[in-house]
Amino acid sequence: MINKLAIIGVGLIGGSLARALRQSGHVGDVVGFGRSLGKLQTAVDLGVIDRVEVSLAATVRGADMVVVAVPVATIKPILSELAPLMVDGAVVTDIGSVKGVVVQAAREALGARYAVFVPGHPIAGTEHSGVVASQAELFQGHHVILTPDNDTDPAALARVRAMWQATGADVLIMSVVQHDEILAACSHLPHMLAYALVDMLVRRDDHKKTFDLAAGGFRDFTRIASSDPVMWRDICVGNSDALVRVLQAYRDNLDVLISAIVRGDADWLEETFNRAKRARDEYIKRDG
Amino acid sequence: MINKLAIIGVGLIGGSLARALRQSGHVGDVVGFGRSLGKLQTAVDLGVIDRVEVSLAATVRGADMVVVAVPVATIKPILSELAPLMVDGAVVTDIGSVKGVVVQAAREALGARYAVFVPGHPIAGTEHSGVVASQAELFQGHHVILTPDNDTDPAALARVRAMWQATGADVLIMSVVQHDEILAACSHLPHMLAYALVDMLVRRDDHKKTFDLAAGGFRDFTRIASSDPVMWRDICVGNSDALVRVLQAYRDNLDVLISAIVRGDADWLEETFNRAKRARDEYIKRDG
Repeated sequence: MINKLAIIGVGLIGGSLARALRQSGHVGDVVGFGRSLGKLQTAVDLGVIDRVEVSLAATVRGADMVVVAVPVATIKPILSELAPLMVDGAVVTDIGSVKGVVVQAAREALGARYAVFVPGHPIAGTEHSGVVASQAELFQGHHVILTPDNDTDPAALARVRAMWQATGADVLIMSVVQHDEILAACSHLPHMLAYALVDMLVRRDDHKKTFDLAAGGFRDFTRIASSDPVMWRDICVGNSDALVRVLQAYRDNLDVLISAIVRGDADWLEETFNRAKRARDEYIKRDG
Repeated sequence: MINKLAIIGVGLIGGSLARALRQSGHVGDVVGFGRSLGKLQTAVDLGVIDRVEVSLAATVRGADMVVVAVPVATIKPILSELAPLMVDGAVVTDIGSVKGVVVQAAREALGARYAVFVPGHPIAGTEHSGVVASQAELFQGHHVILTPDNDTDPAALARVRAMWQATGADVLIMSVVQHDEILAACSHLPHMLAYALVDMLVRRDDHKKTFDLAAGGFRDFTRIASSDPVMWRDICVGNSDALVRVLQAYRDNLDVLISAIVRGDADWLEETFNRAKRARDEYIKRDG
């Protein structure tokens, strides 16, 4: 149970977390803070948060849980501002899609207070952003990854874990490195591929006709290209090593495919497409 | 109005066409032919076709419309077999996803009868195949592209156009070359990218965890990797020139993106993602 939840950045994730915790009765008071007073007012109007504070100090005063739900590049300045305001018993967590840079930023910003910071990443979202898109069910049945290390306070970890479990999420613990490697492959890479495709097609002379003739597959394939550009910019910068590695591996894989098409290797193509189809069908079956 | 419709290959597209024409009252008798008697029986049981013939000759006897709805690589042998069986007044069309190789095959197979062949391509489908996935509404609001040339009989073209319009489709006429260029970009390329991604991920040591942690975006992004491998093998072989061109352009585009990530060019990344998002959002808005 959280007595006072402070949400810094009441967007899709922060807003959905507040809704979910309220619905499950896991939270008392929910206070929001952010850059845009207009958006915070919307969050109040929607009943997502109870009230808005005009300073970070007032927002976190008395809070036993502080969720920093801002773009990755903004986490460090927020944590630096937070550090002198933190009182005993308060736990801090984030929702950033990359964890290496966040952990480094948290160590630098929080110093001796680092132990109460629990790095987190809910694997959920939509291509829409903002509190108006938030929903209490967003995390149900989804994974939330926490990446504590030897310096993380076990009690802080337990409280963040309990918070996410109250939203219906399935909490996984893994290392920062493993998180950033795997997410580069299964999330960051597909986003880059979708952005690169749309960006390439839009620069064609016949792009209007090209988009017009695209079928449903194209719509699904490119859905993630409608995601928040600032968030994805930060992910690229924040997880560049792992992301570049998988992008290069993908480009090499594409070269092999291009060669097979050039030499008209029907057997290789059918076999490769079959293997991919089986893997994807199995993933969908397991995922339910 | 079609008196007797002969469908060679009663799968997703052939079956959906039969259902749509029946629903709109645009067809009398529907006869099916194919390799698998079991699947044809299913088509009869589902009410998609009226009956099955055991020979191609009996199937097309008296038919005023013959739809060849088989994989691209199978179109030529079917047309060769059809050529001596065709009577005056019968029109033949296909549903192949590539048109250059089909037109060449039709010219070779049909000879002087080529005039009554109308190359067609409905831009509709799902990742499921087979007559059990067929539905009368599949083409509603979708484009069907016809690629006639100077040798095509205008009356044959008019009848094929009327048939597709009766399914609720929006019929477009364009050249073979334009069709194959545009489809390479908006359909064939995304399919290749999805296959290459799934194929790459499945070969990772941690692929179970990677698939497990993939979010909804990945599911959508890779949906088309569950498409029919034989169909896509044929498309690669049949449209290799245009496909290789867009694949190479895409790979070059990916290299530019990789360079931007390597040098940490946040401005370039945000701008590029923004441009892609705007284009994709606009496409979705226009597409309704």
